Amino acid sequence: MSELASKSSAMNDVSEIYRRIENSGRSEVFIHLRQQADVERDRRRATGPLAGLLLAVKDNVDVAGVPTTAACPGFSYCPDADAPAVAALKAAGAVVIGKTNLDQFATGLVGTRSPYGAVRDSRRPEYISGGSSSGSAVAVALGFADIAIGTDTAGSGRVPAGLQGLVGIKPTIGVVSTEGVVPACASYDCVTIFATDLATAQAAMAVMSSGAPQRSWPADIPLAAPPAPRVAVPAELPELDAAWRSAFEAAVHRARAAGCDTVPVAMDSFFTAADLLYNGALVAERWDAAGGFVSRAIPDAGLDPTVAAIIMAAGRHSAADLLRDRRRVQELRSEALAQLAGCDALLVPTAPTHPRIADVAADPVAVNARMGRYTNFCNLFDMCAVAIPAGTVADGAQFGITLLAPAFHDAVIADLAGRLLGEPSAAGWPERGGAAVTELAVFGAHLRGQPLEHQLTSRGARWVGAVKTAPHYRLYALDTVPAKPGLVRVTQGGATIVGERWALSRAALGDFLDELPQPMMLGKVELDDGSWITGFGCDHAAAEHGRDITQYGGWLAALAG
Amino acid sequence: MSELASKSSAMNDVSEIYRRIENSGRSEVFIHLRQQADVERDRRRATGPLAGLLLAVKDNVDVAGVPTTAACPGFSYCPDADAPAVAALKAAGAVVIGKTNLDQFATGLVGTRSPYGAVRDSRRPEYISGGSSSGSAVAVALGFADIAIGTDTAGSGRVPAGLQGLVGIKPTIGVVSTEGVVPACASYDCVTIFATDLATAQAAMAVMSSGAPQRSWPADIPLAAPPAPRVAVPAELPELDAAWRSAFEAAVHRARAAGCDTVPVAMDSFFTAADLLYNGALVAERWDAAGGFVSRAIPDAGLDPTVAAIIMAAGRHSAADLLRDRRRVQELRSEALAQLAGCDALLVPTAPTHPRIADVAADPVAVNARMGRYTNFCNLFDMCAVAIPAGTVADGAQFGITLLAPAFHDAVIADLAGRLLGEPSAAGWPERGGAAVTELAVFGAHLRGQPLEHQLTSRGARWVGAVKTAPHYRLYALDTVPAKPGLVRVTQGGATIVGERWALSRAALGDFLDELPQPMMLGKVELDDGSWITGFGCDHAAAEHGRDITQYGGWLAALAG
Repeated sequence: MSELASKSSAMNDVSEIYRRIENSGRSEVFIHLRQQADVERDRRRATGPLAGLLLAVKDNVDVAGVPTTAACPGFSYCPDADAPAVAALKAAGAVVIGKTNLDQFATGLVGTRSPYGAVRDSRRPEYISGGSSSGSAVAVALGFADIAIGTDTAGSGRVPAGLQGLVGIKPTIGVVSTEGVVPACASYDCVTIFATDLATAQAAMAVMSSGAPQRSWPADIPLAAPPAPRVAVPAELPELDAAWRSAFEAAVHRARAAGCDTVPVAMDSFFTAADLLYNGALVAERWDAAGGFVSRAIPDAGLDPTVAAIIMAAGRHSAADLLRDRRRVQELRSEALAQLAGCDALLVPTAPTHPRIADVAADPVAVNARMGRYTNFCNLFDMCAVAIPAGTVADGAQFGITLLAPAFHDAVIADLAGRLLGEPSAAGWPERGGAAVTELAVFGAHLRGQPLEHQLTSRGARWVGAVKTAPHYRLYALDTVPAKPGLVRVTQGGATIVGERWALSRAALGDFLDELPQPMMLGKVELDDGSWITGFGCDHAAAEHGRDITQYGGWLAALAG
Repeated sequence: MSELASKSSAMNDVSEIYRRIENSGRSEVFIHLRQQADVERDRRRATGPLAGLLLAVKDNVDVAGVPTTAACPGFSYCPDADAPAVAALKAAGAVVIGKTNLDQFATGLVGTRSPYGAVRDSRRPEYISGGSSSGSAVAVALGFADIAIGTDTAGSGRVPAGLQGLVGIKPTIGVVSTEGVVPACASYDCVTIFATDLATAQAAMAVMSSGAPQRSWPADIPLAAPPAPRVAVPAELPELDAAWRSAFEAAVHRARAAGCDTVPVAMDSFFTAADLLYNGALVAERWDAAGGFVSRAIPDAGLDPTVAAIIMAAGRHSAADLLRDRRRVQELRSEALAQLAGCDALLVPTAPTHPRIADVAADPVAVNARMGRYTNFCNLFDMCAVAIPAGTVADGAQFGITLLAPAFHDAVIADLAGRLLGEPSAAGWPERGGAAVTELAVFGAHLRGQPLEHQLTSRGARWVGAVKTAPHYRLYALDTVPAKPGLVRVTQGGATIVGERWALSRAALGDFLDELPQPMMLGKVELDDGSWITGFGCDHAAAEHGRDITQYGGWLAALAG
């Protein structure tokens, strides 16, 4: 049992979960539920950082030996292999409980477009769940699973997280492989994760992104938001429900209380791109993905009429139209990213409203389009996102907010999400997911709150925790401005010195070293657990002329003393 | 007058150049030639690293105040601003002499598809120049300009370089802005440079890429090929002229003599992708670029019939076809890069043959297609390339070879090109073109030829030259394996110590530091010119226990002593 799994005591009993599923009257959540005995057996054998966690998988993602339907019975096939994202979670100890319902071919943000039934809101069944990852979100919200895989092209990993009060991480495109995933719009598809808390979602996302990515992390990714982040917020909030306006205002206030500077930005380029996702030739990718099947499908293939109509229409665009619309998206992206210049993230409502199932039935296309107002632009603009809960409003609806940033800033928004949720800062998921990062031990002016901390935070370094050296060092106050100590390894008469451990990219470390003035130096420092870590030392002569402050045991104590 | 310009004494007299142009009988080379007086005035006023160099610009690239025709008179417009690539070269002191002829809309590899006349080979006028950057290449080959801007989508910056005996650099897509360039296939278009020698081409490319790129250099680019590079060569050489087979074999032998290990690779995926560039829906981008104009053009717009037919046909593809072919290109790219795994570059003939103008007239499409056999795949696969001369064969034809590598390995192939040409290693152009690089001073086991040099070369570091410290250091032989010296700064009794300066990316520096074992350290070292550079030092205690070898003045002398 992993630490994550043991948090949730209900999770300790698989039979209790199966009883809960059976008694819930929510047969629409799973398209395929595994045998309880198989899940219990796998769970007993599971080892790894996610051991014991039950995993629900959206049914457009392959699990070996279980049919993949994409919510279209006639499309069903039985894969021989797990999608890499599933394989990674299983290898880390998660156990698949079943495959979940979705808007057919992941085409929709409502959760009602499925011949397996409309997935109902976990709390108020006359409302929609949000989609297209409807069953995955509701499975986690109702406690049928600890984590669930979704996919996200236009918001399918965020809208249902928002409506179901969950955390949903939509990583940078390509850092989680989409192999073994039925494509929706292949250029923009992402594999996502749902969980009830940020730490669990991050742990799972770290595992999913640790396999063979389709796009490597660059050498200079930031690992944290700065101490006083600048967060862009929409200058206007079109289509946002009246009841949610004050909830969003409250979220912005909480961001300020958490140390963020908030900056209003015009959203025109974001919204114009969002419109292009469906009202233009970009949808040709949906034809590319499923058009062949849909156009040949027999009447009893179980096609959803709204989805089938969208996919058939998507086959009628010319290459020239597609090129024109993609060029337009790039222009809008440049404008949008210019709007965000100097900001660490963009904060938006996740969904603008929470409709009833009847509202969707009355106008399936228009209501669906409205749901994507604050999500559609994200993947088109190659941004990453994390959706988090932001409270319950008077009518019982869950309000959700989303933090977004350009590609590869996943750790920045994860860090901000933790600050907004008041969850302690977990180890950033990209660094455990294969990014080229390292650690640096600091002992003086770079400690938190000290004058040169900004040389770390401005390079995206993340504070990890306190360290103690092995008892082989002496500390000298040097003659520098600002005042700095010099740590010197000695063969006798050494002591333990306290400092801090920071995580940072290899490029940030090289850049930091390159800016480091004489007499400071970097090399290896031995810690009290016998490990060696890159850390501070200093020039021989400078230490010889310094004042020995070893007796304080560290720089902060010496400053106080 | 810059150092580059003063190399070429003929270049010192603009009037001589104009006489040469007038007497050449090559009126087809320039579509627009500037007034001699204007060029002389600009040249007198020019300052900067390229001051004095005359620049020819392909007439699909904007020069403020001079018409851009793309070799189609009816398309002509007069731009207000220089393309950024032109602006950068002008700011560095290059002076535009004129705009050069091309295959219309840069559609062709032959140089004959222009109403301004077929551009003839500089040496044997009954042969083609190669295209589409025909006038630019011939202008340099005939000494009408020192450098010339070309563009390259399918090989237009390489094929004419090969046929004209020039160096042609095709950088990674996006690192030189294509703003102010008439698009051919916008996703694959690059701005290129021609020169008679590698150093001049590199200097110009560094300038062109130093402006606002459309794609930033990553933080971890390599700056040199390793000492014993592995170079892939085609296992088979289809379509290569019989006369050029031995010339290519000789080039491969020279590569081996220059220290390269050559590895035969199957070229199927490369050639299959090359076919897709024209025989598929990818050409839809040519419609996107010029289709509107061509379909509306009046009979006297000066359209080349072959080019017009290609562009009109390009308008008939569906979005689904384009998506299918792009996906296929990505699959082929993965296969091709897997073929190159473990290799530092791919070496191919630049063009397979040098046809007569009459050969092209007899079969314009087939001959053109054959010309792109060894170039077409490059931009589709997001590779960079440098074409270099490889000798003259018996019939007087210039034979050219091209080195290619994946995106952002521009410095690796530039370095290899220098080794193959026997030109001394110039400072790599990407690092002067805005890549995030720095330098490291080494004094012991990392010196060239010493046991740990590989820790630098395997990280893409480039040897820059020798350094001497300021006379404030002492050197100690440390008790390490392998043997290393420790450099220690002292307040009195210091001496000058010799070492080496290496250029490397910031990520490589961070990575190098992270692997560095105790007791070695990195900090700032003062050089004899008073500058400070990141460089080696060592732990205080290790130096205290070391043997003083300062009297040798450096590690190599101490080893010899």
